[in-house]
Formats: sequence, structure tokens, C-alpha cells
Amino acid sequence: MTGEERRQDPGAAVMARDLREGRVSARELVEAYLARIAADEPRLHCFAHLDPAHARAQAELADAARQAGRPLGPLHGVPVGIKDIFDTADYPTEHGSPIMAGRRPREDSAVAARLRAAGAIVLGKTVTTEFATFAPGPTRNPHDPARTPGGSAAAVAAGMMPLAVGSQTNGSVIRPASFCGVYGLKPTHGLISRRGCLLQSPTLDHVGVFARCLEDAALLVDVLAGHDPADRATRPSASSGLARGLHTGPSLPPRLAFVQGPAWEEAEPATREAFRELAQHLGDRLVAIDLPEPFAEANKVHRTVWTAELAHHLGPDLARAPELVSPQLTELLEDGRRVLALDYQGALAMRDLYNRALDEVFHEFDALLTPAAPGEAPQGLESTGSPAFCSLWTLCGTPAVSLPILEGPAGMPLGCQLVAARGDDLRLLRVADWLVGMVSEAAGEGR
Amino acid sequence: MTGEERRQDPGAAVMARDLREGRVSARELVEAYLARIAADEPRLHCFAHLDPAHARAQAELADAARQAGRPLGPLHGVPVGIKDIFDTADYPTEHGSPIMAGRRPREDSAVAARLRAAGAIVLGKTVTTEFATFAPGPTRNPHDPARTPGGSAAAVAAGMMPLAVGSQTNGSVIRPASFCGVYGLKPTHGLISRRGCLLQSPTLDHVGVFARCLEDAALLVDVLAGHDPADRATRPSASSGLARGLHTGPSLPPRLAFVQGPAWEEAEPATREAFRELAQHLGDRLVAIDLPEPFAEANKVHRTVWTAELAHHLGPDLARAPELVSPQLTELLEDGRRVLALDYQGALAMRDLYNRALDEVFHEFDALLTPAAPGEAPQGLESTGSPAFCSLWTLCGTPAVSLPILEGPAGMPLGCQLVAARGDDLRLLRVADWLVGMVSEAAGEGR
Repeated sequence: MTGEERRQDPGAAVMARDLREGRVSARELVEAYLARIAADEPRLHCFAHLDPAHARAQAELADAARQAGRPLGPLHGVPVGIKDIFDTADYPTEHGSPIMAGRRPREDSAVAARLRAAGAIVLGKTVTTEFATFAPGPTRNPHDPARTPGGSAAAVAAGMMPLAVGSQTNGSVIRPASFCGVYGLKPTHGLISRRGCLLQSPTLDHVGVFARCLEDAALLVDVLAGHDPADRATRPSASSGLARGLHTGPSLPPRLAFVQGPAWEEAEPATREAFRELAQHLGDRLVAIDLPEPFAEANKVHRTVWTAELAHHLGPDLARAPELVSPQLTELLEDGRRVLALDYQGALAMRDLYNRALDEVFHEFDALLTPAAPGEAPQGLESTGSPAFCSLWTLCGTPAVSLPILEGPAGMPLGCQLVAARGDDLRLLRVADWLVGMVSEAAGEGR
Repeated sequence: MTGEERRQDPGAAVMARDLREGRVSARELVEAYLARIAADEPRLHCFAHLDPAHARAQAELADAARQAGRPLGPLHGVPVGIKDIFDTADYPTEHGSPIMAGRRPREDSAVAARLRAAGAIVLGKTVTTEFATFAPGPTRNPHDPARTPGGSAAAVAAGMMPLAVGSQTNGSVIRPASFCGVYGLKPTHGLISRRGCLLQSPTLDHVGVFARCLEDAALLVDVLAGHDPADRATRPSASSGLARGLHTGPSLPPRLAFVQGPAWEEAEPATREAFRELAQHLGDRLVAIDLPEPFAEANKVHRTVWTAELAHHLGPDLARAPELVSPQLTELLEDGRRVLALDYQGALAMRDLYNRALDEVFHEFDALLTPAAPGEAPQGLESTGSPAFCSLWTLCGTPAVSLPILEGPAGMPLGCQLVAARGDDLRLLRVADWLVGMVSEAAGEGR
């Protein structure tokens, strides 16, 4: 999608309004997206499962419902993609592994069910890495097909769909959003139910979303968020209200802290430079702070929890067909099997300690600003790139968003990550909106 | 305390009413209990810490408050004992270990704070096993000083106090209640906050109570129950309302299931016989059922969770003075250090499976009836006896009560344990009340 096309793309929120008001039909929208898919999918390989006829049939039902004057959901007629680890009753769900080839869930995941209840069209299932871990699928980066997309953000970046649902257990929302130049939002752990989603690590698994503007990400999270007794991490609570609240603040400029985080040594020189410039631009609105010393271990702590839970939840299934498991995943499982209960509990206790320390930090600052990835999307498809700048925030369950407001030395997108306190998703989005405004204002002045 | 004395003992609920109405003073009550303590404590060794002057001072304050017309709590002026693993700002809290000798907490535990807020007099701290695990303290069984009391129920059984707070991570409420012939109630996991209580195993640690009638146990749990953000197992909820609800039902005879449980092989012949007779007496009101096959492993599952969490929570402190740790506890810690995260998670998953199976059982039955211990209190003080009949219900967090309605071959008390669904504490007490009524009616007829 060129810059010109992107400016013409109305975004999902506007699209939903146009659909409700009859200015466009779901069928027209779906046809437009299918045309783009037909053009680019052979090059980009974003889809694990796509049935154009099924997408058209959903669109026709959506149009018929509108014409019949039935009540319409907030995403009525809007096409959405879902990562192929969320069960769908209409599409297969294969978890990116030959072990699950042909798997057809009987029931929708919570995510799929909520999308349908909101009137969305489930356009197709997007490619996932093997069991949402390390071994990549065939998807390429729309900005440079020789590079990894970093995860399931490519279809949104390529304009094949306005919205997509992904997941993050390590960095699989924030990193691909950074690599592909879209907005990636990982809300607070437990805001969105994981019922019917591949269970890898209950402590770390998050549902997240990709969109091409903050409004759209907010709208999608509002549709997905909610209590679900089947997912113990969710809590009864009032509506997330992100879309409604996004533009109502902050009235004062937010207090932002720049945090290098435990992976700063991995940051490429150009990334350091980009953040230096951003800091300069923000002046005294951004204060550089250091996290307390125990945070240096955060990525190791994340790995202990991750591999131990992975071994428990995936190990037994995968032990039945070890020859179909990648070397990367085999190694993760072996590491996980060796973790002692003592170290596992120690890691969970360290997470609690981190969160208590972060509570103090978020008492002073509205959000933390930090890179989303070490640099631009790396060359090649052998790896989806490093999640090192995401692991801490996944471990802590804090909401995080990647904003496509920077650029790397090869002209590839580079994300700026904002992180807020657990439960403060709305504050995070307000700060993000403010920051995006600041940066685009400056870009306008620079022209 | 003889049977005659027990019949004269009015119980805490009546005592609290008499105190409120001025028929007795707190000072008089405390003097009466101190007199009994002076007589029996040299023989029974129930107290870890007791300061008669401090008890008298509290009583005088209580009487002054009443005379001044101040609002009185539900336990105003009633003496209560607290196991020496609950922090008290006035008494030392030494966890039954020389490692903690002289430890003086600055703050009250949630339990102590709630007792004081209810107007209770904290009479003293009762002896605990070493860190509330296996190695016994010096306490003797009031019914036969050559036998173990099984835990911290002896002071209530000896009439040294009308109420006491204990804890159960394995069997330390239900078992001593059975051995000492008092009522022991372990409410649903998370009903009572464990803030300021020795942390041994967050999954298994329960606060429980000892009393000489169900009304008193209900009254004490009502005082202690409540949400506490500092204890994640507690939940915001309405008042437990046990004392108020105890006598309001059941209007229909309850549906009871007799369960042998995973430890039945340990049950002594006389215990089997006592339960056979009880079953005969209850006729078709009691149905014998078998738990599904995976329950056979329950005590092993309990041990995996227990030792792993013990090693995490107590290990680091105790490693500093290994020579002051008993061989029993050293072995538990070593076992716990070896547990794999995989087995620990497997054990927690098994607990969830047990609870789902129990949900089905409790859909059909109001309560399960099962022994509280293999038999009467064993001879000697080297061990507090087997918790094998308690571990499953501790693991599952279900409320359980031991009723002193049976007798062993040596004339020692024998408890009948009732277990209900998690959260159904009131139903449990109603069924218990019904069963106690049935049995005492029969005893009356038998005279």
C-alpha cells in the first residue's frame, strides 16, 4: 500500500459508519479487499486460510441484515483477520504446525465469537509461527519482501484488511507492528479472553490487535474486551471504553519517561539515534529514567516462566510427533522440562516485584517510552526477529502499543513503544494519541 | 474439662451476649480462664506466649468501653487464642522455631486485627508445630496427656479459652479437632485473609477455627472473614453470615454422601466400624459414593504442591540456619527443591480437575461425610498424627468441619468430617447442625 493509498484508506471506524449509513456495502468492501489480496497474497503469503466465497457470503448476510433494519454491531460489515491460533467454527485452526493440519474446531474462540457478535466479517486466518513460538511461517514484509514481517501484522500493513487480531506471549504484537509500520496494541493481561486460543503460557499469553490508526485499534479492543469465566485472567469490569475515551484527553501534556529497558544493548545504532532525536523533540516532556537493578534479569525471568508453561501446556501433545516439531521449539520444550518448581515460583515472584516497582514508576509517569524492537525488520525469513524489547512488558501484563512514527536507515518502519500501568489502557491510548499528534505536527512543520 | 463442666460452659456466643448485657464482666471471664490455665497449663503446655497481666489489661479496657457506652463488637470481651504463626503486635510470634526466637512483629496479622476490631481479648499465642509443618511442640492431649493433641486445638478442648484461631495447610484444623473432641472449621480457601500469617504454601494455607459448638465457630469465622487486597486468594463478597444463617435451614433433610477418600486404607478398624454405625443410623439419608479414579493420587498431588511451595517460601530463610531445622522439615524442603515446574503445574492442573469433578458431586449432594483422621489421637508426642484424611480437601480449598460426635476404642474423641462445595460454608454448617442434632437425639433415645 503506497502512502497515497493509505491516506485514502478511511480506516475501520469510518468504514463501519459508512456501512451503517449505507454509503458502502459490505460486499463492495469485501470485494475491494479480496482484489488487493488477489494481487499481493502470492508475493506476501499472509493467509493460512482464506475462502473468498465464504467472505462474500458473510458480506451478503451483513448487507441483508442492514437492509432488513436489524440492529447493527460496532463492526458491522467490517472485514477482520484472525491469527490462526484462535479457534473459528468456519475456518480451520492449525496453530502453524503440521501436527494440527486439518484441525477444524467445532466452536468459535471468544475472540471470533465477539467479532461475529459485533457484526464483523471474519475474512480469513493469518499465518502464525509454529504454535506462536519461534519458527516462522512463509509471510513476507510488505515493505520489503526480503525481510521478515516479525509476525501477523503484514496483512494489515499490506492493506489486505483494516484490522487483525494477533497474540503476544513474548513480542508478537509489538514487534511485527514495528517491523510492518502499523499500530499494534497489546492491552492489559486479562482484558481480552483467551478461551479457544492456543494455550501456550497462561501467565504470558495476551490477545492483541493490529490497525492502521489508534481509533481502529481502540474500537477493536472495545469489541474484544470483557469478562469470561472460562479465562481466569479476565475480571468482571465496566466496558473498556477506549474508542469513546481516546480523544477526551489528556488536557495536560502527559508525563513520559524514556526507559532503555533490559535489552538496550541489543538496540542498533540507528535505533538509538532515532530515540535520541525523538527525546530532543519532546524536550522536558520526556525524562530519562533507569529501572531498578533487578530488571536487568527480566528477559531471563520471562524465559523461565515461558518455557516452563510451554512444556506443561504443549509438551504432552508434541511428544506424540516429535519429528514434526521444529528444532527451535524442541529446544524450548527441553529447556522448559528442566525448570525447577523453585525457579518457576521465583520467576513469578520476581514478576510481582517488578510490578510493585512499576506501580511506583507509573505513580509519577503516565507512560514509558521505549523501542519496540532493536531496529528495522531484519533481512531473511529464518527468524521473526528479536522480541527482547517486549518480554518485560509481556511478563508484567502492562498494556503496550507500538506507534509507527519512526524510520530506520533502510527506510523501513520503526516502532515507538509506549507502556502504561496495568489496567490503564485508556490512559495509554490517550498518551499515544498525544504523541502521534506531536510527531505529525513536527513532520508538517518540517515540510 | 469434664462433661459436667462442658455443659455449664455457656459458649462464646452466649458469653458475648452476657458481656454486652452486663451480666458478666470481661475481667471476671478472663480471671476464670486464667485460673483454669494456671491449673492445667503446666501439664498440657498449650501456650507459646501468655501474659496474664496483659490479658487482664485488655479485659479492663473492654469493661471500661462497655461502661462508657461505646459500640461493642460481636466478640467484645471474649478471650480468644491465636496460633503462634499469626503476627501479633503485642505478643511475640515465633513460628514454633528457634530460628524465630524473640521475633516481635510490629503489626497485627489480618486475623489479630479483626479479632481486636471485634472486641475480642487476645488471651495468648498457642503452640504450633515447627513452621506449622510436622515437628511437634510440647502440647499434650487434654483427654490423655500421653497422646498428641494433633495441633492447636488443645487449649479449647481443655477449657482454657472458648475460641481459638488455627491454620491448615495439610490437616492442622480438622485433625486436632478430631483428636481433642472440639469443633474444627476450615472455611473455603480465601474466605479469611492470611496477611501477617506465616506463608508456607499460598495454594494450601487456610485459616481455621476451633470452638466448642457450631454457633461459636460460625461467629468467629464471621468476624475473621473478608476481602483483603493483601491476600490474593480473598475475594470481594458479601458478609459470610454464618452465625445468622446457621439455624435457618435446611428445611429438607440434607443429601449426604459417604466418601472413603484417598486415605481409606489408613483408617483403623474402629474408625471403619464407627462410620459403619453412623451410616446405619443415617439410613437412606447417606449414600456411599466413590470418587473418580484420579482422586487416588490426591495426597501425592497435595505433597507436590506443598513441598514445592514450602521450598520457595521457607527455603531461603531456613538455609541460613540449617542446624536449627528439624530433620522432618529438612527432608520436606529437600523434596520441594527437587520438584520440577512441570510436575508442579501438573499438580495444580490436577487440583482443578478434582474441583471440576467435585462440582458435579456437590450438584447432587449437600455435603460429603468422611473420617477426620485414621483413628483416635496416637500415643506419644513424637508426631501430631496423620493428616491423610484432610489433604484432599485442603488441596481443593473446600470448606470442611470436624464434628466431635464419635468415640474411639480407648474412649478418645473421634471426629466426623463434613465437606461442602467451595463457597458453600453456610450450607456446610447447616448440614453439620442437622447431623449433630440427629446424633444427639439418638444418644438421648439410647439413654
